[in-house]
Amino acid sequence: MYVGTPRAGPVRFSLIQYGEGGFREEELKTLDECLSRLATPPSDVITWLDVGGLHDVRTVEELGKRFSLHPLLLEDVVNTEQRPKREEYADVLYIVVKMLSADPDRQRFEVEQVSLVLMPRVLISFQENGGDVFKPVRDRLRSGKGKLKNQQADYLVYSLIDAVVDQYFAVLELTGERIALIEDRLLEGPSLETLHDLHATKRDLLFLRRAVWPLREVLSALERGHSDLIAEATRVYFRDVYDHVVQVIDTVETLRETGAQMLDVYLSSTTYRMTGVMKVLTIITTIFMPLSLVTGLYGMNFRYMPGLNSTWGFASVLAVMLTIGIVMIAIFRKKRWL
Amino acid sequence: MYVGTPRAGPVRFSLIQYGEGGFREEELKTLDECLSRLATPPSDVITWLDVGGLHDVRTVEELGKRFSLHPLLLEDVVNTEQRPKREEYADVLYIVVKMLSADPDRQRFEVEQVSLVLMPRVLISFQENGGDVFKPVRDRLRSGKGKLKNQQADYLVYSLIDAVVDQYFAVLELTGERIALIEDRLLEGPSLETLHDLHATKRDLLFLRRAVWPLREVLSALERGHSDLIAEATRVYFRDVYDHVVQVIDTVETLRETGAQMLDVYLSSTTYRMTGVMKVLTIITTIFMPLSLVTGLYGMNFRYMPGLNSTWGFASVLAVMLTIGIVMIAIFRKKRWL
Amino acid sequence: MYVGTPRAGPVRFSLIQYGEGGFREEELKTLDECLSRLATPPSDVITWLDVGGLHDVRTVEELGKRFSLHPLLLEDVVNTEQRPKREEYADVLYIVVKMLSADPDRQRFEVEQVSLVLMPRVLISFQENGGDVFKPVRDRLRSGKGKLKNQQADYLVYSLIDAVVDQYFAVLELTGERIALIEDRLLEGPSLETLHDLHATKRDLLFLRRAVWPLREVLSALERGHSDLIAEATRVYFRDVYDHVVQVIDTVETLRETGAQMLDVYLSSTTYRMTGVMKVLTIITTIFMPLSLVTGLYGMNFRYMPGLNSTWGFASVLAVMLTIGIVMIAIFRKKRWL
Amino acid sequence: MYVGTPRAGPVRFSLIQYGEGGFREEELKTLDECLSRLATPPSDVITWLDVGGLHDVRTVEELGKRFSLHPLLLEDVVNTEQRPKREEYADVLYIVVKMLSADPDRQRFEVEQVSLVLMPRVLISFQENGGDVFKPVRDRLRSGKGKLKNQQADYLVYSLIDAVVDQYFAVLELTGERIALIEDRLLEGPSLETLHDLHATKRDLLFLRRAVWPLREVLSALERGHSDLIAEATRVYFRDVYDHVVQVIDTVETLRETGAQMLDVYLSSTTYRMTGVMKVLTIITTIFMPLSLVTGLYGMNFRYMPGLNSTWGFASVLAVMLTIGIVMIAIFRKKRWL
Amino acid sequence: MYVGTPRAGPVRFSLIQYGEGGFREEELKTLDECLSRLATPPSDVITWLDVGGLHDVRTVEELGKRFSLHPLLLEDVVNTEQRPKREEYADVLYIVVKMLSADPDRQRFEVEQVSLVLMPRVLISFQENGGDVFKPVRDRLRSGKGKLKNQQADYLVYSLIDAVVDQYFAVLELTGERIALIEDRLLEGPSLETLHDLHATKRDLLFLRRAVWPLREVLSALERGHSDLIAEATRVYFRDVYDHVVQVIDTVETLRETGAQMLDVYLSSTTYRMTGVMKVLTIITTIFMPLSLVTGLYGMNFRYMPGLNSTWGFASVLAVMLTIGIVMIAIFRKKRWL
Repeated sequence: MYVGTPRAGPVRFSLIQYGEGGFREEELKTLDECLSRLATPPSDVITWLDVGGLHDVRTVEELGKRFSLHPLLLEDVVNTEQRPKREEYADVLYIVVKMLSADPDRQRFEVEQVSLVLMPRVLISFQENGGDVFKPVRDRLRSGKGKLKNQQADYLVYSLIDAVVDQYFAVLELTGERIALIEDRLLEGPSLETLHDLHATKRDLLFLRRAVWPLREVLSALERGHSDLIAEATRVYFRDVYDHVVQVIDTVETLRETGAQMLDVYLSSTTYRMTGVMKVLTIITTIFMPLSLVTGLYGMNFRYMPGLNSTWGFASVLAVMLTIGIVMIAIFRKKRWL
Repeated sequence: MYVGTPRAGPVRFSLIQYGEGGFREEELKTLDECLSRLATPPSDVITWLDVGGLHDVRTVEELGKRFSLHPLLLEDVVNTEQRPKREEYADVLYIVVKMLSADPDRQRFEVEQVSLVLMPRVLISFQENGGDVFKPVRDRLRSGKGKLKNQQADYLVYSLIDAVVDQYFAVLELTGERIALIEDRLLEGPSLETLHDLHATKRDLLFLRRAVWPLREVLSALERGHSDLIAEATRVYFRDVYDHVVQVIDTVETLRETGAQMLDVYLSSTTYRMTGVMKVLTIITTIFMPLSLVTGLYGMNFRYMPGLNSTWGFASVLAVMLTIGIVMIAIFRKKRWL
Repeated sequence: MYVGTPRAGPVRFSLIQYGEGGFREEELKTLDECLSRLATPPSDVITWLDVGGLHDVRTVEELGKRFSLHPLLLEDVVNTEQRPKREEYADVLYIVVKMLSADPDRQRFEVEQVSLVLMPRVLISFQENGGDVFKPVRDRLRSGKGKLKNQQADYLVYSLIDAVVDQYFAVLELTGERIALIEDRLLEGPSLETLHDLHATKRDLLFLRRAVWPLREVLSALERGHSDLIAEATRVYFRDVYDHVVQVIDTVETLRETGAQMLDVYLSSTTYRMTGVMKVLTIITTIFMPLSLVTGLYGMNFRYMPGLNSTWGFASVLAVMLTIGIVMIAIFRKKRWL
Repeated sequence: MYVGTPRAGPVRFSLIQYGEGGFREEELKTLDECLSRLATPPSDVITWLDVGGLHDVRTVEELGKRFSLHPLLLEDVVNTEQRPKREEYADVLYIVVKMLSADPDRQRFEVEQVSLVLMPRVLISFQENGGDVFKPVRDRLRSGKGKLKNQQADYLVYSLIDAVVDQYFAVLELTGERIALIEDRLLEGPSLETLHDLHATKRDLLFLRRAVWPLREVLSALERGHSDLIAEATRVYFRDVYDHVVQVIDTVETLRETGAQMLDVYLSSTTYRMTGVMKVLTIITTIFMPLSLVTGLYGMNFRYMPGLNSTWGFASVLAVMLTIGIVMIAIFRKKRWL
Repeated sequence: MYVGTPRAGPVRFSLIQYGEGGFREEELKTLDECLSRLATPPSDVITWLDVGGLHDVRTVEELGKRFSLHPLLLEDVVNTEQRPKREEYADVLYIVVKMLSADPDRQRFEVEQVSLVLMPRVLISFQENGGDVFKPVRDRLRSGKGKLKNQQADYLVYSLIDAVVDQYFAVLELTGERIALIEDRLLEGPSLETLHDLHATKRDLLFLRRAVWPLREVLSALERGHSDLIAEATRVYFRDVYDHVVQVIDTVETLRETGAQMLDVYLSSTTYRMTGVMKVLTIITTIFMPLSLVTGLYGMNFRYMPGLNSTWGFASVLAVMLTIGIVMIAIFRKKRWL
């Protein structure tokens, strides 16, 4: 439901090569074009190939052949139901992350799987649709500013994951706002619609949690430097993204607890209100039933009833009824129902 | 209840031998035939014996004698209430997994215990009934395609477990659909039947969880290569099944949480509706009881009551009653009950 | 409440000695008789002394003196509120387990503490009452069949613990049946008695859990062979009992979750039913109160009321009431209350 | 609330010195007297100084100076809101435990902090009020029986902690009885008072838990012998207290779960009863409202109503009403409400 | 909401230098002044620069340049949504803590992020607003009393964190009082306002917990002495703060459990009260409806009804009604509703 609709159009290849010799960017149309470019990369540049679209299986297969990737790795690239994970093959580091994009209009977020395949001096990233989450990274490379340009491919991996995690904060902000809105509505007075909104939000949080929790482990492993492909100096950056992910998890858990508390608040205040309604009903019934009985008594058609023909009969009965009513109200006051 | 009914017929023996010298497959009828084939296996082939049916204890005993299997191992093969586990004896690796088969018609799934006994160049698999879950593996061996044919017996173990885990995804899909259906019905308006369906589904998930959780540990141990019978190169495949199992667990836990949330939604929306019903009751009672009292008053048979004989008496009383009604409604509006 | 009543009679001593030289069994009456037998045990036999009854403190003290047991160990033997545990003293391995005996008539189970004191070639077991749970072990020793006879005392420890754990399965089966019965009764329609049965069963499960969880740790330590008194070859048997205990724990937890779910089912279906009852009440009230008001109006004794003397007055009012009734029912149908 | 009121009177110093040379006990009045005694302790005795009362800060300061205790340690002695903990300074082992004293009359227990400062051959214990929990230990020393007399100061530490833990069992027994009493009252029929008792007991358990959980860690560290001040031979005794504490924790957790279950039982049986009440209300209303309508119809004052003047009119209406009543009851029986 | 409003005014620089040569304190107005002072610090003093205000990014940048701080560290200083953490760079130890200030009037607390950057002989602390939490530390330095003056910068770090943690206790006391107040009000009789107060308090506790939990890990790492910048002798002080933080966490968890219990108490006592209300309603209805029916019967206008003209008719009917009423009350007494 939240998974983005797969792009049916052609696969997009975006090839960036940078290094001391400069920066070159190309948008390639076909796989073959792409493979020919990759045939003989200059030895002193970092190559980043961003593949947008996984619906053409041949693309993945051919690239896998070109870089001698393990068949299981290729399977994982194509299977978009993966959990975030990190796997190492000889000379290849494979990372799966979930990209979330907040969509403020529909109050929803979309999920896309991103696979990063890191080899010495080469990084291939696979996106399902190829949104523009990586645009800031590309821009920084183009502008040549910042340290990104002078770094190895492992720093590029960091930059991409960082861009993905930045999106999480946007999604969380959106979810936080939804919850705050729901809370306001619950305090004003609950409606079925609000309850269902709360339910939907809790579900989204469940979903979010599933996407973020495993990422923590992935980044922790990268930070601890299990892989030769991650340079010592880059590990501090992974620690930074790791911190961000921990912060995201923290917020998700807090929002989940807040959601649970709101249901508690709803239930307890509803129970409170229902007791109030019940009291009103009981008070009304308890006051009026005896009074009605009295009128019923003198509504009977017996010929001989005391006071029937007396001038003060009606008034006396009214007085009796008034007394009954006052006594009842006094009892309720004593019971603190009024 | 979910455990498949044991086949009462004869035990089925399916013997496959493959290797560089080719592929041979035989369906054997009796244990003795089977033992004679196993007496002198050629030294360069992999032997896979698939035993379908555990009801004949002698089968297991004789096979155990032939391969010098530990008595505790044989006990475990026959006891079909095992948890998934992995045990190592000298030169023997014993693995128990639970096979689930989705049965879309009955909205249920069946469970069968599969025991895998791996020895150097020999694999014996025991199934309770011998369904056709292993058919794809057998087909791949027959066709000679893929890498399975050139691999050792440990890769065959992987292939069989992989086939079992693939079934889990089918079962999960089925369960996910059931839950989605129940949710739709709960939102439309709950019924006792839906509640019981929800309950049954939660139970199935509890069951599923018991079958899958221990498997994770089993595969983790295989991946970490604790056993000499698992070659270094095969471990990456066990890591892959491990990932699948983690994904299954993840989905099971999510479905469980979704189920719990649905009960919350049900309870809170029922409470909401009940409060609504109570309000209607209270409103009706509160409006009509005073009005009835007024009619009761003038229904009394006192001779002297003010306005009894007046032309406007009836109309005046009606006016009074109308006023009472309007005031009541105004109060309810102010209380936001209307 | 579930703890067996301590036997007040004399303590029972059952001495078994076996080994290559044969098998000898004696039922001894007094402690002194017992001590004299133990004074000079032949060097090549395994001695198993089973003590039934802990109420005579002197028994434990004297035996402790004879075998130089640590005072803390003796204290633990006598204190029957111990958790299952394993303790090592120099040359002595001390194990406490909880023996449960299912009692199908009373739908309850009894608990007894069993202490096993393992020394080289000697095993002393202390039971509170000395039931017949160890009878199968004794029978196997007597018959001389199986491997038990040729094994060391550590294997005897395994056999006794195995006999105790086998009882757990019987207790679990009994509890599972009670829960299934309760569920059937809850689905038919709840009663207070069923609720209290559910409560009692949940309590028993809590109790069961306390008896079994620590045993897991005990067996895990025995399996990992921390003690010199457990031979390498026997450890595989302790692994087997360990597996059984894990299975018992698994089942206990599942039953506990099932019990919790049943309460959920009960509560949600009761809420459902209560809403139904409330609706009936509200419908009846809402239909009849306005009708009663109409009759009340024409029950008033005003002289001048429209239509009082008309031939069609009564019929018109009936028609009005019928219309009101139909409109009300239509409204309820629209609200889906009918 | 449960914290004992601090004694305002003078601080009590109880000095005990024992060893091979004998046993000497003194009750000292002032700090200076105390310091002079401690100035030159004979080298072959164990010195135990028990300080009762922490309200005089100078006491702690002077003692700290005399024994060169770390300022942080002294701060901890005076701050009576500490969690149980164990800290090591050079040549000093500092232990904080919580002393509970069951007070059967008030159905409450009191808490006091006890600090133990162990140095070679010297032990100082600080109590808030100086109750008589340590009396049994003192008595054993005086009598010269048991092994305590011949042991080092570490064994004395064990004896004191053991005395404290023994009190926990008394408190637990008291709490268990309170819970059993509450349960009986809940089953008979709940009252607000019982609910509040349950609430108070759950709170006490929360409190108890906080006092006991950290102690487990403390004793586990002592048992594992992290400190040079604890002799190898004494560690087995700490293991014994450790076991007792684990047992206490176990019981606390069980009582907490029992308390939670009792609330469940209360809520579900109340819901059950409320549904019963609602049914009675609905049945009464449903039967009598139609009957009242019938009487209302013939209570109208129309001149022309069928059967008004007939001899059998009244009887016919009664017959109609009886039929309505019987039909209603039949419906309720079918719905199983009766 | 709880985050303090950022000070818009100028950033405050408070420079303290102390050591054997004495103590010097300066309040500097501008960054440049500050940098010039820091240009050539005497080699034998400890320099503590306290920066109040993070809204001027240039401040942080310039200081970072001066001390060659890692860009990620500077980012973290400015980002005030950090979790408490500890990070090590070459020769730099970076610590983030959350400062809470109890605000007794508004029944709320404010949160501020404090960053501590420890380098050899230099400590820079960044506060968001620069409250006066550090005043006691400054005072102690000024007065020259205590050991602070003679210690290295690591002890200063300890002193600052200790001052922050001391504030937590004040916040907890405030929260504890709020909860006690809420409990009193709940027991007297619940109101919606109390429920919302409880909800708000639970939220604050959630918030508090998030601020404190990670701090535990931070201090545990400092105590275990992972960093070269923390001297061996200072570690015991960090252990002390660690203990305080554990105590804070303990109290937070206890307060959270108490809050959850209070909701339980509220819900169960409300259910109890509602059942009481329902019973009153049912009793009243059940007694008066049959009585009203009787009066309705004799209110009918049939000419022929038994006893209509009898002198004792009215009295007989009253007697019948009295009997009905007494029977009803007897039934309710038997059902224990009265």
